[in-house]
Amino acid sequence: MEGREEDVKVGANRFPERQPIGTGAQSQDNKDYVEPPPAPLFEPLELSSWSFYRAGIAEFVASLLFLYITVLTVMGVVRSPSKCSTVGTQGIAWAFGGMIFALVYCTAGISGGHINPAVTFGLLLARKLSLTRAVFYMVMQCLGAICGAGIVKGFQKSQYERLGGGANSVSHGYTKGDGLGAEIMGTFLLVYTVFSATDAKRNARDSHVPILAPLPIGFAVFLVHLATIPVTGTGINPARSLGAAIIYNREHAWDDHWIFWVGPFVGAALAAVYHQIVIRAIPFKSK
Amino acid sequence: MEGREEDVKVGANRFPERQPIGTGAQSQDNKDYVEPPPAPLFEPLELSSWSFYRAGIAEFVASLLFLYITVLTVMGVVRSPSKCSTVGTQGIAWAFGGMIFALVYCTAGISGGHINPAVTFGLLLARKLSLTRAVFYMVMQCLGAICGAGIVKGFQKSQYERLGGGANSVSHGYTKGDGLGAEIMGTFLLVYTVFSATDAKRNARDSHVPILAPLPIGFAVFLVHLATIPVTGTGINPARSLGAAIIYNREHAWDDHWIFWVGPFVGAALAAVYHQIVIRAIPFKSK
Amino acid sequence: MEGREEDVKVGANRFPERQPIGTGAQSQDNKDYVEPPPAPLFEPLELSSWSFYRAGIAEFVASLLFLYITVLTVMGVVRSPSKCSTVGTQGIAWAFGGMIFALVYCTAGISGGHINPAVTFGLLLARKLSLTRAVFYMVMQCLGAICGAGIVKGFQKSQYERLGGGANSVSHGYTKGDGLGAEIMGTFLLVYTVFSATDAKRNARDSHVPILAPLPIGFAVFLVHLATIPVTGTGINPARSLGAAIIYNREHAWDDHWIFWVGPFVGAALAAVYHQIVIRAIPFKSK
Amino acid sequence: MEGREEDVKVGANRFPERQPIGTGAQSQDNKDYVEPPPAPLFEPLELSSWSFYRAGIAEFVASLLFLYITVLTVMGVVRSPSKCSTVGTQGIAWAFGGMIFALVYCTAGISGGHINPAVTFGLLLARKLSLTRAVFYMVMQCLGAICGAGIVKGFQKSQYERLGGGANSVSHGYTKGDGLGAEIMGTFLLVYTVFSATDAKRNARDSHVPILAPLPIGFAVFLVHLATIPVTGTGINPARSLGAAIIYNREHAWDDHWIFWVGPFVGAALAAVYHQIVIRAIPFKSK
Repeated sequence: MEGREEDVKVGANRFPERQPIGTGAQSQDNKDYVEPPPAPLFEPLELSSWSFYRAGIAEFVASLLFLYITVLTVMGVVRSPSKCSTVGTQGIAWAFGGMIFALVYCTAGISGGHINPAVTFGLLLARKLSLTRAVFYMVMQCLGAICGAGIVKGFQKSQYERLGGGANSVSHGYTKGDGLGAEIMGTFLLVYTVFSATDAKRNARDSHVPILAPLPIGFAVFLVHLATIPVTGTGINPARSLGAAIIYNREHAWDDHWIFWVGPFVGAALAAVYHQIVIRAIPFKSK
Repeated sequence: MEGREEDVKVGANRFPERQPIGTGAQSQDNKDYVEPPPAPLFEPLELSSWSFYRAGIAEFVASLLFLYITVLTVMGVVRSPSKCSTVGTQGIAWAFGGMIFALVYCTAGISGGHINPAVTFGLLLARKLSLTRAVFYMVMQCLGAICGAGIVKGFQKSQYERLGGGANSVSHGYTKGDGLGAEIMGTFLLVYTVFSATDAKRNARDSHVPILAPLPIGFAVFLVHLATIPVTGTGINPARSLGAAIIYNREHAWDDHWIFWVGPFVGAALAAVYHQIVIRAIPFKSK
Repeated sequence: MEGREEDVKVGANRFPERQPIGTGAQSQDNKDYVEPPPAPLFEPLELSSWSFYRAGIAEFVASLLFLYITVLTVMGVVRSPSKCSTVGTQGIAWAFGGMIFALVYCTAGISGGHINPAVTFGLLLARKLSLTRAVFYMVMQCLGAICGAGIVKGFQKSQYERLGGGANSVSHGYTKGDGLGAEIMGTFLLVYTVFSATDAKRNARDSHVPILAPLPIGFAVFLVHLATIPVTGTGINPARSLGAAIIYNREHAWDDHWIFWVGPFVGAALAAVYHQIVIRAIPFKSK
Repeated sequence: MEGREEDVKVGANRFPERQPIGTGAQSQDNKDYVEPPPAPLFEPLELSSWSFYRAGIAEFVASLLFLYITVLTVMGVVRSPSKCSTVGTQGIAWAFGGMIFALVYCTAGISGGHINPAVTFGLLLARKLSLTRAVFYMVMQCLGAICGAGIVKGFQKSQYERLGGGANSVSHGYTKGDGLGAEIMGTFLLVYTVFSATDAKRNARDSHVPILAPLPIGFAVFLVHLATIPVTGTGINPARSLGAAIIYNREHAWDDHWIFWVGPFVGAALAAVYHQIVIRAIPFKSK
């Protein structure tokens, strides 16, 4: 292992010019970044800090706005007899991806801008935040999502119940296994993008990266929606799926609901493993 | 309160590594930014400065271009029998959001790039500009909007009057309360994005943020249009609604017009309160 | 005049906090930028420099790629009986705006990234480049545009001649005056964005602005296309209009052709005047 | 040659103010960048470095995700009887371009973010990476592409075989020569953008350029798809074409397959020649 760990450093230092598009972040000799220590599972001091609660409130408000805009966009498309006079399925994909871009940009400095229990779970596995904080975030995300979908239902109750309110389910023609696979793949892409865009190594050299990070993250959400709206309506965010399901609350919405928790959590875990083991090779590094 | 105010500082300093996507702007010990003092309500010296009038002219020209492009895009869509041969509803949303992106980018250094009385109102509540300047901006924004819509009407007078010229009203199937709620929520999202993207704390560390800020602000406008074009046609900008209503000038356009002033101003006020009280905790900070 | 010129400086220095979204570039006391001296009309030394010819080649290649991609996109839309199975009118607008974004990004460091005689004309009026260079650029832009449209015709000669090859003309239902007005307004927006995004004052403080400038410039082109494709097909670029007209070469394409030279040049001149006189107040500044 | 090489330096130094949108990277006297030496063809030490294999894995995973999202998006569009209820052809173009943007952003620091044998080939010609590494990348890209398309087929085997699975071929109404030309032009635009956005001269002054580079590169892919989906379905990436062809595996998919290797490689070679000879004038520079 010692030898392999050496390799990591050697390779990275010796061939910088082979990576022409690269940020160069991997290829510098002077290790000018500090790997943050893993977050403790429980951090009692957090609970007495206003910034902890403020972060939860920010996740709540962001999740509320996320579901409000996206579910209202979905309703506007499905209620129209002619899809051509609406923003269309592509417009729905833009609503999901664009909201994540704007909200991550706005809340990144307050809560880290997760707005998604799967993202929180992936970052928890990589020990980027405490278990206490992760659970608090997930609860606030789900509450915000429920409120956001509820506001849309308040606008148009009868149509909401008739048209499904953006609740996720596996489409006709696909098996539950297909749906689960699509959720795993989609969340892998999203959480992999989150890890890549916020890597501590990148931040060290390119101090403005966290400002740009919301753009590829929002695009990842947009792209997964382009591909998997026909398969499952696209979850890749358990809070979004839960909020829509609770407000819709028909049996149909609950039948496949486990898929939209298991899939995203498995995808996020795979992305965390891929980034920490393969890309960062953290287990093979000394100290 | 003293204790809580201490909490704010403590929490922010102690857990920087918990915010993995964050800009870190909130988590630095060294307070390397200066909270600008609140702007006075009246600043007589402003009135003798060319930059004050130049800023008003810039708001006028930007509002004119904004209405010109967006109303012309709306007219191009509604006058066509087949929506598929037009840029579609999604294209309308791009026109509104894209124009705000480009115009905020261009006028930010001259006038602050408001181009929207609701944004001016929100920033006035946060004491970012004087009352004199706010009123001057709002008047210039409304005049610009009227001229912009007027140019489009000059191109195609009969069709303009037949097709509504992009004037806002609550769509069939929604109550006035729904329309008001949609305007409040939409403007909240927009003004919240403005506050988040231009926060003094962010600017201190990430000196290029104001350059990037137009992108999430433009996206916020785009996203609100994706969601609420089917509800109210989307105002979230009283100058835009007024300009379209005055040039169209049918009773239909004036019936719901108060919604497009009350909604945006309430939404902007809520966003100002949320950002100043919850996010920045300004009332709890000692000097 | 002396007094007014003083105002400019006073106002800019005294009220920095009134411009909350601003870059602050206008409001700094320390004038940390150097207004470049006006370019001479003739600069004989340029003609013996390889970088001069390289810039012309870059403008030629960029204009060729611009016409190739955009005219091919237009042909793909107009040849299909069902617009829904194509990228649609919105896709055409993306092709024009996106190409300008990518090409300005690529050629900015070589030639300044004009790719449009109207932009070259506007910058010439502001004395940003010599007359020799301006004429050379315009010739190369037109030659490139002709070649780009010619390649598309090579792919599909009969359809090209039947469907118009993206040549500009005033649409049925609009007068020549409407078309001229739309070209003036659209080019004003584009050239105004070019001036704002590349302002020397901005560059001084925000050294990365020229990197970001292609984005609002590309968006301006996209937005004008969203609005005025139904009116004139959108020129705002005489080289693009000339290239398409020469390769199409039917009487119909030449009837309104003067509009696509006069309109863009007038719009560019107005934008140059607006930026230099109103925004920068250059005539009122001493020295 | 000596004289001409002098010209290059003279011209670049003497007329900086003529390039108003430019980054100025070309116009600085102080040559503050180091032209990296050409990569050797074989670099045995690479083979013993973990970063070499990690880069290959990153190219594999990125190519897998690229084909998965894009082919699934294509399938969602072609299987629907009404294109209006899908993301449409424009959505397909966004899927290809957006994925390249996000994946180049994520893998740039690990492997250089090629995800395309034509890009690898172009960079090899410019001696930016060793032959060993280039061949390794191409193999991993092709394997990843095959796996990505295979996952989509696993979701919907019968429809995949009926609808073509996004395999490239020359459309009815175009000759093989047209298809080859479209692939050459499209790949030229892509690889030219890659060279321009990652130029060592730019990097020297604008240290954040590599962070922004993925955006124009992704846009180039998007734009080529807008234009040439009706011609060939758009390859410009031999791994993408190979992966789709192998998983589809009908005679139809193999008939024109050589076009999607010859075209991209010729286009990439032309772009490398254009950038190295015309833009950078490397052969004319001393040492």
